[in-house]
Amino acid sequence: MYNEHKKEFQLERLILFSDAVFAIAITLLVLEIKIPDLHSADEHVKSTITDTALLDSLRKLIPKFMGFIISFVLIGLYWTIHHRMFGYVTAYNHNLLRLNLFFLFFIVLMPFSTGFYSEYAGGMVRNQLKLPLTFYVLNFCGVGFLNYIMWRYISNPKHKLATPPIDPQTLKLAKLRSLIVPVIFLSMLPVAYLTNVLVAVYMPMLIPVIMKILKRRANKKYHITHTPN
Amino acid sequence: MYNEHKKEFQLERLILFSDAVFAIAITLLVLEIKIPDLHSADEHVKSTITDTALLDSLRKLIPKFMGFIISFVLIGLYWTIHHRMFGYVTAYNHNLLRLNLFFLFFIVLMPFSTGFYSEYAGGMVRNQLKLPLTFYVLNFCGVGFLNYIMWRYISNPKHKLATPPIDPQTLKLAKLRSLIVPVIFLSMLPVAYLTNVLVAVYMPMLIPVIMKILKRRANKKYHITHTPN
Amino acid sequence: MYNEHKKEFQLERLILFSDAVFAIAITLLVLEIKIPDLHSADEHVKSTITDTALLDSLRKLIPKFMGFIISFVLIGLYWTIHHRMFGYVTAYNHNLLRLNLFFLFFIVLMPFSTGFYSEYAGGMVRNQLKLPLTFYVLNFCGVGFLNYIMWRYISNPKHKLATPPIDPQTLKLAKLRSLIVPVIFLSMLPVAYLTNVLVAVYMPMLIPVIMKILKRRANKKYHITHTPN
Amino acid sequence: MYNEHKKEFQLERLILFSDAVFAIAITLLVLEIKIPDLHSADEHVKSTITDTALLDSLRKLIPKFMGFIISFVLIGLYWTIHHRMFGYVTAYNHNLLRLNLFFLFFIVLMPFSTGFYSEYAGGMVRNQLKLPLTFYVLNFCGVGFLNYIMWRYISNPKHKLATPPIDPQTLKLAKLRSLIVPVIFLSMLPVAYLTNVLVAVYMPMLIPVIMKILKRRANKKYHITHTPN
Repeated sequence: MYNEHKKEFQLERLILFSDAVFAIAITLLVLEIKIPDLHSADEHVKSTITDTALLDSLRKLIPKFMGFIISFVLIGLYWTIHHRMFGYVTAYNHNLLRLNLFFLFFIVLMPFSTGFYSEYAGGMVRNQLKLPLTFYVLNFCGVGFLNYIMWRYISNPKHKLATPPIDPQTLKLAKLRSLIVPVIFLSMLPVAYLTNVLVAVYMPMLIPVIMKILKRRANKKYHITHTPN
Repeated sequence: MYNEHKKEFQLERLILFSDAVFAIAITLLVLEIKIPDLHSADEHVKSTITDTALLDSLRKLIPKFMGFIISFVLIGLYWTIHHRMFGYVTAYNHNLLRLNLFFLFFIVLMPFSTGFYSEYAGGMVRNQLKLPLTFYVLNFCGVGFLNYIMWRYISNPKHKLATPPIDPQTLKLAKLRSLIVPVIFLSMLPVAYLTNVLVAVYMPMLIPVIMKILKRRANKKYHITHTPN
Repeated sequence: MYNEHKKEFQLERLILFSDAVFAIAITLLVLEIKIPDLHSADEHVKSTITDTALLDSLRKLIPKFMGFIISFVLIGLYWTIHHRMFGYVTAYNHNLLRLNLFFLFFIVLMPFSTGFYSEYAGGMVRNQLKLPLTFYVLNFCGVGFLNYIMWRYISNPKHKLATPPIDPQTLKLAKLRSLIVPVIFLSMLPVAYLTNVLVAVYMPMLIPVIMKILKRRANKKYHITHTPN
Repeated sequence: MYNEHKKEFQLERLILFSDAVFAIAITLLVLEIKIPDLHSADEHVKSTITDTALLDSLRKLIPKFMGFIISFVLIGLYWTIHHRMFGYVTAYNHNLLRLNLFFLFFIVLMPFSTGFYSEYAGGMVRNQLKLPLTFYVLNFCGVGFLNYIMWRYISNPKHKLATPPIDPQTLKLAKLRSLIVPVIFLSMLPVAYLTNVLVAVYMPMLIPVIMKILKRRANKKYHITHTPN
């Protein structure tokens, strides 16, 4: 009985540690938006700060805000996926710990690649810069593919991590959905390199649309298994 | 039995993730108060630092401290509201996860808007700057209105998230209170734009007063439902 | 039964939120130790960095390391006190939530005052600066006195927060110990202002000694109540 | 019964606090990788940023990325060790709290020493700098030796912290493995001081190899005690 509780807690610890990492990564994102600095040592300049000047400096931060919002939404999305995934998990082993850490590695890297991406977002369009986009895309592919691998690992009956086993239809959908983000992100690269960076930048907007379509198809099944009654 | 425990843990995970975000946002606030830098490469200057010079540099930080204290109090307040709210919640669904993430988005944005607000607080009064105030106000309105929407969503019997249902009187009061902060903050904007920024800046001081009045009225009811005995 | 579990979780949430704040504050301390920067745009200078130059720059960081260690030890100490205190707490009310947030306020302020203190530690001795010390001392007094108030509030049988009630002998000792840090810190101020800052700076070293004496006196009693068997 | 639950929670609190510190330290690592800054006040320069220039600036960050990855892997490794260790712990005492805080001290210091190490990694090879390596090595030795001491303390039947007692074979292996990292790291110092820094830098790559060998030998035993069935 006590042993049972301990095993559960060990699994919960793995989950709560992941949550802490998610929470910190999602909150650190905001640190990349530096407060506009119009002050100068010269006291005269200080007294001439106007709303117009501030608005202008905020406008320059728009790419940073966009990057912040996109990454917040995506980290939030992966947190909800992680939340749902571990709703099925009833045991752990050393490989799951390692896979999870590997997955978190790409989550932790997010504040950097978001910052890098949004720092050069203006230049990306103006000068057709492709590197920040590539870095950002590869980071999200890391998140997405590891998420997919975790679904596969957890649902593999050989590992005995999920009892009762995940319903095959739900699992198929979960795997499919976990691949959407990396696939769309990856497809940004040929678009950016072959046509125009500006087109590629707006492609992630397809994600919620496709997600919604898949979710609607799965909705009925999901409600049956998840709604607490 | 085990399933019951798992469902509970999934809800608790949602709550503890929110707590981690709250905790990080409330702690990051302090990073906006930069330590005064009187040093210079010139060793001669270093040896002439005096308490008076330091006091002067601390005095310049007063708006930062004020912003830190106000935001700490308000994030703390919303944490206690979140704590009370989820005291009623006994189940979760995907929409609640999303609403909660949306709510946390505005919490995460707080260190930035507090920093922006307090960086230009001096200039706000001197030059009648309205932009930092507007940004700050809109951020808190986001926090407040989403909090209100969450109360509505959770208490809606259709969603079966709170059993037993929240007592209507308590709920009415909770909703009312969750609207006070955004309403008072919003009313700062016409005051600032039409009269004087300085007047608007002191308006949040009304919040604890009005809160206290409402709390006193609700006190008897609250004690009955909450005091553990 | 379920209600019982919910009440417990609400209390645990208060505790785990505090832990997250403690954990972040204790980890942010290290951010105040900036990595020495010997690089310059000039590539020539870069190639002349030597171990001696680096050691010299590390030596300048010694006050920072000292501040880091002292604050780590003290935040760690208050975490263990908080841990022990809430080992007795079996219920919560709104005032306890507020007192705890007030207590955490001073914990959150620690990275700033540690940074401020250690930034000017060199100057403090050289120029008899008293302001950084005063700020640091007042911060710890806030932590200490609020800790004392919490012990009083929790142990007050009127509030029904600790059942069974805390053994009077243990409580007396806990209160006494929670006052030691603020009292010793406060006494640093007259010493610094009336005699020499350098003497005051070393006074916190008395804390572990006095703590040890009190702990030894209480040891027998503590072991009886705490050792799990 | 309730008391039993409280004791368990007090132990879980110790563990979850450690997790929060681990999570923050592992996430703060990324803050040491500063986003390359090619902008200048001069608008003309801004419009000439190219992918080549960005790639060049990313290439300069390679030592930072290497440091980030190594430290992420090692903190992750120690988290899994901490996770396994506390899987055996069923009680706590004041000394365990203190040992654990001492252990966390070296974890918290990691972002600094990783940053210091990777900041001067280029110079280390070019100018045979030994100080950053020494600092980094000593930090990891702190982590490793404290980990070893904790295994000893927890497994000591006198302290009654692990019931049932840890199987001697498992314990022996755990202790052995907890010493590998500090021993290999320590041996980097004579290699660096007597031969060449470049050789020493690559020595940590031996860790996973040796770990794997030991793990394989212990694998059968581990699966018997850990796999949930």
